[in-house]
Amino acid sequence: MQLSEIYEPIQEDLVKVEEWLKITSKVEFHRLSELLGYSLEDGGKRIRPGLTLLSGKLYSYDISSLLPMAAAVELMHTSTLVHDDAIDNSSVRRSRPTINKMWGEDKAVLLGDYMFAKAGELATETQNLQVVKLFSQTLMIISSGQLVESFDAFNPEQTREHYLERISSKTASLFSLATESGAVLSQAPEEAVKVLKEYGYNLGIAFQVVDDILDFIGSEEEMGKPIGSDLAQGTLTLPAMLLLERYPQDNPVKRLFQDRSKQENIKLAIESVRNSSIIPDCYKLASDYCATACHNLEQLPDKPTRQTLIELAHYIVRRKR
Amino acid sequence: MQLSEIYEPIQEDLVKVEEWLKITSKVEFHRLSELLGYSLEDGGKRIRPGLTLLSGKLYSYDISSLLPMAAAVELMHTSTLVHDDAIDNSSVRRSRPTINKMWGEDKAVLLGDYMFAKAGELATETQNLQVVKLFSQTLMIISSGQLVESFDAFNPEQTREHYLERISSKTASLFSLATESGAVLSQAPEEAVKVLKEYGYNLGIAFQVVDDILDFIGSEEEMGKPIGSDLAQGTLTLPAMLLLERYPQDNPVKRLFQDRSKQENIKLAIESVRNSSIIPDCYKLASDYCATACHNLEQLPDKPTRQTLIELAHYIVRRKR
Repeated sequence: MQLSEIYEPIQEDLVKVEEWLKITSKVEFHRLSELLGYSLEDGGKRIRPGLTLLSGKLYSYDISSLLPMAAAVELMHTSTLVHDDAIDNSSVRRSRPTINKMWGEDKAVLLGDYMFAKAGELATETQNLQVVKLFSQTLMIISSGQLVESFDAFNPEQTREHYLERISSKTASLFSLATESGAVLSQAPEEAVKVLKEYGYNLGIAFQVVDDILDFIGSEEEMGKPIGSDLAQGTLTLPAMLLLERYPQDNPVKRLFQDRSKQENIKLAIESVRNSSIIPDCYKLASDYCATACHNLEQLPDKPTRQTLIELAHYIVRRKR
Repeated sequence: MQLSEIYEPIQEDLVKVEEWLKITSKVEFHRLSELLGYSLEDGGKRIRPGLTLLSGKLYSYDISSLLPMAAAVELMHTSTLVHDDAIDNSSVRRSRPTINKMWGEDKAVLLGDYMFAKAGELATETQNLQVVKLFSQTLMIISSGQLVESFDAFNPEQTREHYLERISSKTASLFSLATESGAVLSQAPEEAVKVLKEYGYNLGIAFQVVDDILDFIGSEEEMGKPIGSDLAQGTLTLPAMLLLERYPQDNPVKRLFQDRSKQENIKLAIESVRNSSIIPDCYKLASDYCATACHNLEQLPDKPTRQTLIELAHYIVRRKR
């Protein structure tokens, strides 16, 4: 199933989220407008706002608060990407030059700050303090997780628990904000809020594991950025970790982390991972989290939207970009 | 009058603000704790939280919401400094190495993000959505103002209106958030909220003009950072602007902005400014804004706190650091 088919029940409202984002980028200061437009147009898969809307659809769907929240989570996501690219000095994202490449790192940092703030303002449009607080707390978790990643760069001594903690902070936290806020804003019962939060969390872990897999086996064209970029940044993702476990002696990841100038090891690591059973093993983990996410949903009312959330979970594991 | 004497009526509560900030820096992830502690300890003059508390003192002083808000404005201020230093590649602030100098630019960007988010969370502790929204909007204005500054770097063609707009965004907006939120949270009547907001705004402009003056005439020791750093960053502040106006032909600022490698022009510009009537003229402008700020207060009840706010305004123009 294509993503567009899965989104069918919320298609109209996703268009409205795009309109909110478009309005966001219309500001008086034209250079800022240009930067915002560039970051937000031709967007990603809009999975996070999709999750907010779908979670809302299970209960008392109130578009007046769900739309600004959906726009807020997407904007927060985009701002973390803008800062990430600036920090990593990345040149390409979604097949286009990054903000830092086009306008410089200083502009990227300040643009990201503006977008965080604007996302916070959008969150207040929900008129719901609980959700606004969750919003800030999620950004705390994300930036703290990215700090962990930054301090752990080029450190080969990391456990699987480290890895899961890290991706839980940097990715699953925002997925669970998306689903939890959708549930809270549509007056879901407390137990259902918890269930949808859990679903978002497990989905987020699955999403990030697949992201980390695709950085080894994806096509550069479909991914819109160079393959092996995690290794280039010194980020030890699951496939690289498993490669280290299986070949502890002579290992390209180890050599790269010892001397990051030896970039040829990136290609070697990718080849070694591809020629092993590591990728299926990683997919196994992603599928387990996906299954747990779907299992979470069994406690919710049997509505068509529940099926949509299950399909979305399967799409997330299956996707090629 | 010393700042400590002016703060006398709120001294005890300012200590509590420090405690809030200290608690903020106690987090499980010890590297983050270290960075937070370093940024927040041995702090600045705490003028912004002071303004929030003093504004609150004029009406129904409610410490349970004023304290987190005061901590939030100080935290937001500190995060903008952390990002500023990272962007400008500054090495010294408050007589100590900057975060980017000590831990790298990537850590500084992520730490700033974390602090913005934490400040947002503190703002929600007020339980007042209006104030939380103002908080986000202020961060939008500040980062947008900093983007203007960044795009205008090394551009000698700027008017005084440009300058005032810029410092209004980057400094006065946060001063007026500090006073306005203090007023809102202490149930001040609508008219008084407006008056305190205006006072904060005018005080903020005066503060920044003096800051820009001190970057020409201050002592490196008292300022805790190198003199002439605005020029080094290509930021055209009022003294430099007046120097350009008065000597449009052969001018060190012009030469520096044409070729930023010619750093000797910074020293020459500082000397030229010091040997002219530019500094008194800049002080005249700062004093005018200070007077307007004090004039604003005349509309408020004649309480001792009103006098304190007037003394604070005079201190701000008089200060040497």
